[in-house]
Amino acid sequence: MARVPSTWFMEFVTPDTIQQFAVKDILYFGRSKYQTVEVIETVSFGKCLILDGKIQSCEKDEFIYHEALVHPAMILHPNPETVFIAGGGEGATLREVLAHKTVKRVVMVDIDAEVIDICQRLLPAHQQGSFDDPRVELLHRDAREYLAETRERFDVIIIDLPDPIEGGPAYLLYTQKFYQLLRSKLIANGALALQAGSTRLNETKVCTAVNNTLKTIFPIVATYETDIPSFGGPWGFSLASLKFDPFELSSGEIDGRIGGRVGKRLDFYDGQTHQGLFFIPKYLRDAMARETMVISEDNPVFIP
Amino acid sequence: MARVPSTWFMEFVTPDTIQQFAVKDILYFGRSKYQTVEVIETVSFGKCLILDGKIQSCEKDEFIYHEALVHPAMILHPNPETVFIAGGGEGATLREVLAHKTVKRVVMVDIDAEVIDICQRLLPAHQQGSFDDPRVELLHRDAREYLAETRERFDVIIIDLPDPIEGGPAYLLYTQKFYQLLRSKLIANGALALQAGSTRLNETKVCTAVNNTLKTIFPIVATYETDIPSFGGPWGFSLASLKFDPFELSSGEIDGRIGGRVGKRLDFYDGQTHQGLFFIPKYLRDAMARETMVISEDNPVFIP
Amino acid sequence: MARVPSTWFMEFVTPDTIQQFAVKDILYFGRSKYQTVEVIETVSFGKCLILDGKIQSCEKDEFIYHEALVHPAMILHPNPETVFIAGGGEGATLREVLAHKTVKRVVMVDIDAEVIDICQRLLPAHQQGSFDDPRVELLHRDAREYLAETRERFDVIIIDLPDPIEGGPAYLLYTQKFYQLLRSKLIANGALALQAGSTRLNETKVCTAVNNTLKTIFPIVATYETDIPSFGGPWGFSLASLKFDPFELSSGEIDGRIGGRVGKRLDFYDGQTHQGLFFIPKYLRDAMARETMVISEDNPVFIP
Amino acid sequence: MARVPSTWFMEFVTPDTIQQFAVKDILYFGRSKYQTVEVIETVSFGKCLILDGKIQSCEKDEFIYHEALVHPAMILHPNPETVFIAGGGEGATLREVLAHKTVKRVVMVDIDAEVIDICQRLLPAHQQGSFDDPRVELLHRDAREYLAETRERFDVIIIDLPDPIEGGPAYLLYTQKFYQLLRSKLIANGALALQAGSTRLNETKVCTAVNNTLKTIFPIVATYETDIPSFGGPWGFSLASLKFDPFELSSGEIDGRIGGRVGKRLDFYDGQTHQGLFFIPKYLRDAMARETMVISEDNPVFIP
Repeated sequence: MARVPSTWFMEFVTPDTIQQFAVKDILYFGRSKYQTVEVIETVSFGKCLILDGKIQSCEKDEFIYHEALVHPAMILHPNPETVFIAGGGEGATLREVLAHKTVKRVVMVDIDAEVIDICQRLLPAHQQGSFDDPRVELLHRDAREYLAETRERFDVIIIDLPDPIEGGPAYLLYTQKFYQLLRSKLIANGALALQAGSTRLNETKVCTAVNNTLKTIFPIVATYETDIPSFGGPWGFSLASLKFDPFELSSGEIDGRIGGRVGKRLDFYDGQTHQGLFFIPKYLRDAMARETMVISEDNPVFIP
Repeated sequence: MARVPSTWFMEFVTPDTIQQFAVKDILYFGRSKYQTVEVIETVSFGKCLILDGKIQSCEKDEFIYHEALVHPAMILHPNPETVFIAGGGEGATLREVLAHKTVKRVVMVDIDAEVIDICQRLLPAHQQGSFDDPRVELLHRDAREYLAETRERFDVIIIDLPDPIEGGPAYLLYTQKFYQLLRSKLIANGALALQAGSTRLNETKVCTAVNNTLKTIFPIVATYETDIPSFGGPWGFSLASLKFDPFELSSGEIDGRIGGRVGKRLDFYDGQTHQGLFFIPKYLRDAMARETMVISEDNPVFIP
Repeated sequence: MARVPSTWFMEFVTPDTIQQFAVKDILYFGRSKYQTVEVIETVSFGKCLILDGKIQSCEKDEFIYHEALVHPAMILHPNPETVFIAGGGEGATLREVLAHKTVKRVVMVDIDAEVIDICQRLLPAHQQGSFDDPRVELLHRDAREYLAETRERFDVIIIDLPDPIEGGPAYLLYTQKFYQLLRSKLIANGALALQAGSTRLNETKVCTAVNNTLKTIFPIVATYETDIPSFGGPWGFSLASLKFDPFELSSGEIDGRIGGRVGKRLDFYDGQTHQGLFFIPKYLRDAMARETMVISEDNPVFIP
Repeated sequence: MARVPSTWFMEFVTPDTIQQFAVKDILYFGRSKYQTVEVIETVSFGKCLILDGKIQSCEKDEFIYHEALVHPAMILHPNPETVFIAGGGEGATLREVLAHKTVKRVVMVDIDAEVIDICQRLLPAHQQGSFDDPRVELLHRDAREYLAETRERFDVIIIDLPDPIEGGPAYLLYTQKFYQLLRSKLIANGALALQAGSTRLNETKVCTAVNNTLKTIFPIVATYETDIPSFGGPWGFSLASLKFDPFELSSGEIDGRIGGRVGKRLDFYDGQTHQGLFFIPKYLRDAMARETMVISEDNPVFIP
């Protein structure tokens, strides 16, 4: 008898790379105002959110992505009290932020209310009640417009947006202008973390261009990566900081801060993981060093 | 936005041919005592039953398969009153048989009670209440054992079994010995119809061997074929008859018998379709003519 | 050990249907002025020509397509001496036409000289020297322009063009206006045959619209179909005729004409096959009967 | 026009995970005495060796795998003069070993002479003349038998074998007994490196069991990982050492040793990469800590 179902999720990771996962159940297929939305249950990764055919995150391995996105910036900051999140509709980025007991206020702006509603109903393990936390203000708006209007500034900003796609709107949030706006919304010790796309060999353009563009604005920029199994390879993140350097934190200091502040068990991130994250392979450092592109609205970057 | 879901049913039609259909929903995945059972809803073909990874029938095109399997034999018989069905768990073969008003009694034997139960719950459009018809006796047994024991004989026998697979049990029902047993259970004017596997070019071995084996037992044997879209190509059927020849029925006679007897609309079969079914392409006739194999338990036939 | 190679040809037959064939060799991948061109060798079908990702024809089953396209029209004509072919770059349509000893002149117009050159080098079994036949005039031009200019008229016209695709140029050759042009180029007993796209259930729109459009112009129009394994299902053809009706030819007459005229062995077409071709299933006749569309440049038809 | 070929390499990475890469050319498909052998050229990764349907290594990213396998052990040893390699038929492991100027003698044992021959002809960029180096002795034998017979001992041993598959022979080389044999063939400062299979979340069993088994024999064992794009995820390696600890080497020391010894440019490995390799994520360390299995011939480990 067959060991797995006959039904497979299929994703063109790039125009010449496909990944497929066996599927046990389809919980949702529809279209929101902004995108095609699917929630499926895979054999390997449990329940997954799919937007426009691309995996956003899966129950079984989302802890890697969300811990990697949130904790390096949060731990780097000596006392993060106010946090801004752009995107992150599943609620898991919010969940990791709220785990820091220092946090008093989180503003989360995600344009697609339908996706958040679907995730709340069908992916409860992602948000785990985070949207009900009284520290959270949730807005369904364009993040860039909101930040341009608000006078509020934050200790930490987390950008959890889809990749920049030709013809899509997200690419405007991958520009020098937007990063300048983000810097202006950070308080003195502030740190910014963002997902920067695939770091698979030969697909690193978005990541290196984001890194280079951030360097024109922030005094400290570090790119780090880790493998996200359901994304089909290693993923890049950027940490941009006004004052503190992630390379100067020892494993012991990190474990101490986690112990003092974080009110939940972490499965991915700790002091040793931090070292592994920031010591990236030579070919990726070389690609960073060669990169000269500064991303602007007139000279944008897209995934292939 | 994506036009179809990201999830696909994938079937190895042969070791070197795959077909995939986009899937909207998964209604069931489990294992019965005998096989892996899946019920999925595809974009093209609606709800489909999958056994051991092979499509058995789909809502949107099952009418082609079931009308082609049942009506040529039923119409050929001048007055079919008693019918035996082996297999056919979806209930659609039964539905087509019961549409003939001449029918007074149907014995249906399908070994897998769980599959019938799943189909009754999840594929109601297939059986359409047929299992509740008072003319029907439904048994969950081995068809060969049942026939060996019973003293009853029938006007028409319909064999609706999965393909013979190496290592599976169905191959014993594709032998000269079984066909002799079937002949002994037919009344004088009797006719036997069975599905005989793919007639795709170069995959016709089961069909030609079945045809040749039937010829050693029945005075009249005709192989016919039609395309079943969800099976990925043309499908073969055999009609073996004790007295009447399907080539001697005119279109007009067939349409007259349908009008007189069949209490439902047919979408596939009528007099003209009958002509198309039995006039098969030259290469398939040539393959039939070259075939010398007589299938026995010691010299069985398997799909590749 | 693995029984087949790990490499597969993948074709989106429709947006929700994929077919894949195991591949033994890749003989060519490139781009002509008009299209992407690939020649691959599959396990099941031998060497195949692929244009813009769609299978055009394969060594092992091309005889079905080309015999079905060419011979019904040629045999229907009492004495075909002059033939026009649009498209058919592989040369196999030409090969079947030239097999008729009555033929004195063939004009073949295919716009893509590179494809013909590649086929001559890599698919010799398709054309079998046909391009060297002194009866043939081969032109690399737009077929519609050529016909509009020429004063020549023909006994038989064969249209062997790719399916009409949104954004592609071929759709102009699937219009009432083009069919009027074709009629004006036929001599009194003339017949026109063309491939009319898939007749898979629910994908018959091109075929029924072509059939209906031809009926506004020709006194006799018959649609026929047969399964082409490498196309993934049944395929439709239209035979439009000024005088003779394909339903009035008996099997015996057809076999007699083949014997008298055709100088090669046919593996698909003969008198019995002809009957099977033209007696199409009821659902396809019903779809034809329901069709009201007349294709024009302002109201074109496209494959999904 | 299509941007990539229609032909795809398809690999079942696990029973519920498939990866596909677009293929430009097929250079070889055949069977050696031991396995199915394919050499293909992919769009993303260049020429790749495939054994029994599994990617072994690809031109574009093999430097990551082979530098990660070879250099940590070689650099850890203060003066590696003699090296034993099991497997590694492509010759790239040999190439990296020979890059160390300290090396005076390499014994390489790979059972499949046909694979080595095919790689030499079709993958010249892998071995780059290494098989012609006078320091190399190449034997086509069973590695275990050879080691059991020889009296020679080595400074460094590199095990570059396929994953242990149920029913295959390689699993005997993933046992405590074999690791004891390897230890007995190491000289005092000796180090052993081996590839230990996937470290994708939930597929880490081989890696953790190998790590645990090595710990019963060697005083120092460290597992490290990096992403190999064409393997579809992160890959584990084990470094077992009699005396030196890879955690005690600073980035500066490593870069110094590379500068002093290695006669070629490295694209993956250097001091910083070394830190990233050995600081593995918390969930993988936790899985190591939980592992209690000691692999023996009676209690073997297999990939799923």
